[in-house]
Amino acid sequence: MKIFNNSFTVSTNKRCDMVDITGKVEKALADSGISDGEVIIYCPHTTAAITINENADPDVVHDILLTLSELVPQNRDGYKHSEGNSDAHVKSSIVGCSETVIITGGQMQLGTWQGIYFCEFDGPRKRTVNVRITGQ
Amino acid sequence: MKIFNNSFTVSTNKRCDMVDITGKVEKALADSGISDGEVIIYCPHTTAAITINENADPDVVHDILLTLSELVPQNRDGYKHSEGNSDAHVKSSIVGCSETVIITGGQMQLGTWQGIYFCEFDGPRKRTVNVRITGQ
Amino acid sequence: MKIFNNSFTVSTNKRCDMVDITGKVEKALADSGISDGEVIIYCPHTTAAITINENADPDVVHDILLTLSELVPQNRDGYKHSEGNSDAHVKSSIVGCSETVIITGGQMQLGTWQGIYFCEFDGPRKRTVNVRITGQ
Repeated sequence: MKIFNNSFTVSTNKRCDMVDITGKVEKALADSGISDGEVIIYCPHTTAAITINENADPDVVHDILLTLSELVPQNRDGYKHSEGNSDAHVKSSIVGCSETVIITGGQMQLGTWQGIYFCEFDGPRKRTVNVRITGQ
Repeated sequence: MKIFNNSFTVSTNKRCDMVDITGKVEKALADSGISDGEVIIYCPHTTAAITINENADPDVVHDILLTLSELVPQNRDGYKHSEGNSDAHVKSSIVGCSETVIITGGQMQLGTWQGIYFCEFDGPRKRTVNVRITGQ
Repeated sequence: MKIFNNSFTVSTNKRCDMVDITGKVEKALADSGISDGEVIIYCPHTTAAITINENADPDVVHDILLTLSELVPQNRDGYKHSEGNSDAHVKSSIVGCSETVIITGGQMQLGTWQGIYFCEFDGPRKRTVNVRITGQ
């Protein structure tokens, strides 16, 4: 069994943003030479997340970010954390900091409309994504 | 180390639905012959999800779907996506498109009340679930 | 490839609580002798969850629990489940019952501010967490 590690940076452009990182994960998979296994896409930040959703119509990303911001406003009576980014921490735990995708025949088994997104909730910033590919 | 792949279809009956797929995953596990490892249950759709929750009282499923629909209504001022299913995409990212379960002694280590659910947010449809079992 | 299993208990002190279990997972990792692989932290309960978020300022935990409780109140018109803990089941599916962390050089690759939390949504109770470490 082989293990392959990769990290790359993502530059986000707004306070809340979703950046399609599918191509970067595919590049890591090609570099790994692994054809059958799984890939973990991991976000080491507490005000960001990883999700998988539609990458055909950019309006979907808009609507996801809009809804999350209406559910979890930046300012809320009762927030104690003094950095003004409590909402970003909450969104991180709701969306989750990693995804796992199955690899078969050297390809990620994403659905037809699925792409992998880095979700920024407290940007703009330069962020890191860790990728771990395991398999044979 | 062995790798075993399985896919099955799920027919959903309503726009929002949760279908218990525990038995289908257990069947795949039995077919795999793997006794110690892990199973990834993966949804390749962007308007559906996978979750683990109580499978004893069906009212729990009702209350989960009710709450998600109140938090993420089908129509919201500001949605841009023109297919009328923005809510389904949002719910997919909130619930998440996969779960991983530990296998020991040929059994999934689910808790007493835990079942694995396919969550439909834009049905009714015929859907696919991919299962990857890795171990020995 | 080695597989190492561990379980430990967590005592929660309030109805809704987040307990930092990073040290317990690190202890399991040290006991495993595995230096390169991954760890699955799994909650076998349907009214609790596992998340990764900031462990420096305890106000972050306060704000996460506050927001979840405002989004998913304990009592809601329409809840059918008769145990009075429908909110806890919903929160469990929103936050998710497991996390996976990459291991390199015998260390979990958590970000600088990341800790692993057991999330209690229907306590206080004595709970179990299952840990599975796979690697070499």
